[in-house]
Amino acid sequence: MPLGQREGDGKSESRYCGVETSFSDDMPDLLAFSLHGGFDFIVPPLMDPSYRPSLMDTGSNGSGPLPFAGSDLVLSPSQWSGHVVGKISPWIDLDSEDEVLRKDSEITLKQEIAWASHLSLQACVLPAPKGVICANYARCVNQILQNLNHMQLWLRIPLEKPDDDGIENPDFMYGGQVDSWEIWNSFRLLCEHHSLLAVALDVLSSLPSMNSLGRWFGEPVRVSILNTNSFLTNAQGYPCLSKRHQRLLTGFFNHSVQVVISGEATHDFASRNVQLGVNNDEDHSEGTQEHSLRAYLDYVGYLYQRLEPIPEQERIEIGYRDYLQSPLQPLMDNLEAQTYETFEKDTSKYVQYQRAVSKALLDRVPDEKASSVTTVLMVVGAGRGPLVRASLQSAEETGRKLRVYAVEKNPNAVVTLHSLVKLEGWEKIVTIISSDMRCWEAPEKADILVSELLGSFGDNELSPECLDGAQRFLKQDGISIPSSYTSFIQPVTASKIYNDILTHKDLLHFETAYVVKLHRVARLAPNQPVFTFTHPEYSSERSNQRYKKLRFELPGDTGSALIHGFAGYFDATLYKDVHLGIEPSTATPNMFSWFPIFFPLRKPICVQPGTPLDIHLWRCCGSSKVWYEWCITSPVASPIHNSNGRSYWVGL
Amino acid sequence: MPLGQREGDGKSESRYCGVETSFSDDMPDLLAFSLHGGFDFIVPPLMDPSYRPSLMDTGSNGSGPLPFAGSDLVLSPSQWSGHVVGKISPWIDLDSEDEVLRKDSEITLKQEIAWASHLSLQACVLPAPKGVICANYARCVNQILQNLNHMQLWLRIPLEKPDDDGIENPDFMYGGQVDSWEIWNSFRLLCEHHSLLAVALDVLSSLPSMNSLGRWFGEPVRVSILNTNSFLTNAQGYPCLSKRHQRLLTGFFNHSVQVVISGEATHDFASRNVQLGVNNDEDHSEGTQEHSLRAYLDYVGYLYQRLEPIPEQERIEIGYRDYLQSPLQPLMDNLEAQTYETFEKDTSKYVQYQRAVSKALLDRVPDEKASSVTTVLMVVGAGRGPLVRASLQSAEETGRKLRVYAVEKNPNAVVTLHSLVKLEGWEKIVTIISSDMRCWEAPEKADILVSELLGSFGDNELSPECLDGAQRFLKQDGISIPSSYTSFIQPVTASKIYNDILTHKDLLHFETAYVVKLHRVARLAPNQPVFTFTHPEYSSERSNQRYKKLRFELPGDTGSALIHGFAGYFDATLYKDVHLGIEPSTATPNMFSWFPIFFPLRKPICVQPGTPLDIHLWRCCGSSKVWYEWCITSPVASPIHNSNGRSYWVGL
Repeated sequence: MPLGQREGDGKSESRYCGVETSFSDDMPDLLAFSLHGGFDFIVPPLMDPSYRPSLMDTGSNGSGPLPFAGSDLVLSPSQWSGHVVGKISPWIDLDSEDEVLRKDSEITLKQEIAWASHLSLQACVLPAPKGVICANYARCVNQILQNLNHMQLWLRIPLEKPDDDGIENPDFMYGGQVDSWEIWNSFRLLCEHHSLLAVALDVLSSLPSMNSLGRWFGEPVRVSILNTNSFLTNAQGYPCLSKRHQRLLTGFFNHSVQVVISGEATHDFASRNVQLGVNNDEDHSEGTQEHSLRAYLDYVGYLYQRLEPIPEQERIEIGYRDYLQSPLQPLMDNLEAQTYETFEKDTSKYVQYQRAVSKALLDRVPDEKASSVTTVLMVVGAGRGPLVRASLQSAEETGRKLRVYAVEKNPNAVVTLHSLVKLEGWEKIVTIISSDMRCWEAPEKADILVSELLGSFGDNELSPECLDGAQRFLKQDGISIPSSYTSFIQPVTASKIYNDILTHKDLLHFETAYVVKLHRVARLAPNQPVFTFTHPEYSSERSNQRYKKLRFELPGDTGSALIHGFAGYFDATLYKDVHLGIEPSTATPNMFSWFPIFFPLRKPICVQPGTPLDIHLWRCCGSSKVWYEWCITSPVASPIHNSNGRSYWVGL
Repeated sequence: MPLGQREGDGKSESRYCGVETSFSDDMPDLLAFSLHGGFDFIVPPLMDPSYRPSLMDTGSNGSGPLPFAGSDLVLSPSQWSGHVVGKISPWIDLDSEDEVLRKDSEITLKQEIAWASHLSLQACVLPAPKGVICANYARCVNQILQNLNHMQLWLRIPLEKPDDDGIENPDFMYGGQVDSWEIWNSFRLLCEHHSLLAVALDVLSSLPSMNSLGRWFGEPVRVSILNTNSFLTNAQGYPCLSKRHQRLLTGFFNHSVQVVISGEATHDFASRNVQLGVNNDEDHSEGTQEHSLRAYLDYVGYLYQRLEPIPEQERIEIGYRDYLQSPLQPLMDNLEAQTYETFEKDTSKYVQYQRAVSKALLDRVPDEKASSVTTVLMVVGAGRGPLVRASLQSAEETGRKLRVYAVEKNPNAVVTLHSLVKLEGWEKIVTIISSDMRCWEAPEKADILVSELLGSFGDNELSPECLDGAQRFLKQDGISIPSSYTSFIQPVTASKIYNDILTHKDLLHFETAYVVKLHRVARLAPNQPVFTFTHPEYSSERSNQRYKKLRFELPGDTGSALIHGFAGYFDATLYKDVHLGIEPSTATPNMFSWFPIFFPLRKPICVQPGTPLDIHLWRCCGSSKVWYEWCITSPVASPIHNSNGRSYWVGL
């Protein structure tokens, strides 16, 4: 029974809650009891815990059946795949010094995974590595992964990190406490980011710092296993969680991470209802007895139901989360009607434009000249007319007289523009020019040039080149709206996006910047500005080539982190204090025209605490295209990405 | 005029010596004078050093010719390509804070390279990076490299490294002196190991430690530029080099690195002959005047001519240097006659076998029983009979009686065996068995089992599996020759090999172990033993699977280094103190049957001083094949290489 129904996100995986159980020979009873107890799935051991291959009677010649829990027939296929996550024997230790144990572990692991595959389970939980060096475990899992088609393997990782941030003790591998993220990181690097390898996070009673926890939101965490002893007890003797645990759980719910409740009922209330003991969920007849972990489940359900509803705009965008799109090529290609339709609905954006134009009109024409002076305003890249409308509304609002030229290169949009002007009766005010602004010969010069040519990274849809072409017909003291824009980037962990790019198995996709609604990412350091363009720009040295090197320092309490690439944003100054942008700390509310941009790294780079991350970005201009190149030089040098724009470029 | 003729290596590039010159408008005169002075090629600037794009008269609209040295017509195409290496303007600085200088640099660099390409020069020398951060320089060179087809770019790197080994000051990038290898390493990582990017090492008066210098022998060093002030003055006032410089030069000569002499003649002798001064090699009429750097050239020629001749065996193998071969599959495939022919010539090997068999015979049969006891000796994998011959010679040498079974699975080799036995009249002693030793049913048991089934890595041609099959017919107290063998590995820098693997552009070639005569490699740490096999092996736990983790520590004075993979060797104990092997510190002299093996890394790994390098190796056995897997876990985790033997395996 799902934890609840969250408005706008009815399909989130995180509404299902599981329970970790002991080994049972009677799977149907175990499942029925757990489902009746309110859980959606169970995580039972698949194999009798006393089984060891080396203890088997060699006389029987291995002909007897393996001591699995039940046979495949005791549950229906849909029950196996829908309600059972296999738990691999926790005793296995493939990196033990004891060779017999190591071999028993390898044999058992392979047998259990083969069984789980046979049952078509969706996933198995792999026990946490016993030590920090787990190369043999990783090798064996990697071998298994090569032959898996759909079943996921969730490596159990205890959520712990020493408080000291590791700078004093950089040799994390061999001394004292360990940052368990490092174990996960080694393991997945050894297994090459295999898409079926994920994480089951064991949540313990104490939690590391928020920065340290934040890293996990860029990782493929599928479940968080909440042990009963990580719960507190409220005044009524019922289990509850600390504020920090609650915040973490909210984060998990928002990132489709399922909860599994684990351990024994250890709270007062429990003793009132059921017997304590390891077997307390095994001895249950007719399902009449309440599940001993029900109170924990109820509390988790309460937290789920208390979640804020998802805002309208976010709901629309759920389908786009972490979905990679190629940036538009608005100069080379003509936009389609549907694209105009979508963007024109972004009222927040046009409200900002209208405010900017109004301010500019007031600055340009004093009240006493309002009726005598006609301001020449040109909308360059008018599309189907939303900026024409916004500008005319500004004129009306400020009582200024306007003559508008609407310049548009897309002949299809020009058709719509003409009908709009006719429909609205703007014929006397608005002149439609079907031309590329870079070659139009204007009959007069403009006071105000209005454009919306910005991409997610500001200049990436070639606004600088277009406005360079248009400023010929702007008066010397004329105003460009926007008057400037700046791009920003920050390093992120983004396993899902990395894996999606990896599926293409080529260089091209690792040297392309994507437009993407970032969701399962960990933002590891604050944004920094990259390139700024100002309009108009009359300097004789003017160039739209840019080079920027940036140094990011990760917060000291984060621990190490893996950088899959850089999230990019822009902020534009439309006019004076009127701005527009998607840089998270200053983003224009409720605007949906732009998702962030993502610059991938061909090989993710691990950054240790205290080591700076140096990135270099270039904006390069050729005769027929503009492109970015990027690279890392610290902690180690990466290849230069996208040399000569070989993989990704924007056509002029 | 080449420096000399070295016996056995007449074609080495290193016999040519060049000279760095000043800018000259009269290229034919400059070249003629230098050739007449004994040099083989010149390294002149291509462009007037006073040229700066930003200082050009913009009025002329760029229509005048660029101030290059001469036109393409002043020398013949073969003179340009055979005797001129272009020197790119040393003033260029693409990472300057001064934007004008940066842009001038980029324009000039591209113009000069384009000119050099037009002239079909073989190479250009790029000036040394001005600082440790040279990302923009690397980006620009990388762009150029994408469009080059054959001309090499030699990045000039001063051969210097601070004496303190960097452990105290790990932040090498920002404090005090710099290890110039790090600059090279960043640069080539940014340019992705481009095969046309190489190094011109500037040799200065002081040299870093041998371990630090040693790294360069694994790098693509094409020339060493010897500045005149790195020379000492001998008693006669003539230039000479310190012992350490001489050793370094010998190393360069042995690795096909050419010498270029640079700078002004600053020694006493010089003042006797010619005027000192920057222009002293420009004002020369009729070539009658001696070249001011002749004494330096003569000294370098003297060192070249003094080189030890190349040993016979090494000469034969010159053609195999750094040439990648796939290991044999002697079980799956039958060897060809030519292969037997080659291996049978390796007398050193059979001398060792004969010694081992003699010792075993003496141990097994006391003198008093020499005439009464017949020892049963089986050669398993007899091939065309060399071990049969060696064994019979042992019998004769020790006066012991022998009955020999020669077991061979290759029916083609069996033909030869039969004629050999007939020819030598061994019919009464030798029985030929045409069978795979793993399934032969022997009529009696053997006292001694002799085999030569070893590969470069010991067990890699499946000697363990074959001898496991053969030990069925060895007496309980019988002797196996070899009685054991151990593999060894060490980490190496091997740019050339890495680049050769890279040309295949696939995973398979990066997950294959190669047999290769290692030459241009830097061996970075002493060998360590990996897997050992002992024969006979009667343990019930017997398995030929192996797992070994090894930790390498690079010597503290090496500095950082790039690991492209691991060189592998073996050493075998034939019997008691008689061994046979290629592990360099104990290698059997004059033996040529085995080159080392090389395990590549898919991504080279940079190891900083003081950081351990941890490698894991597995020998895995399946029902039809045996394979290795390998990975790194420190300093960072690599992928597991060759999972499930997907790329490289040996068939059973």
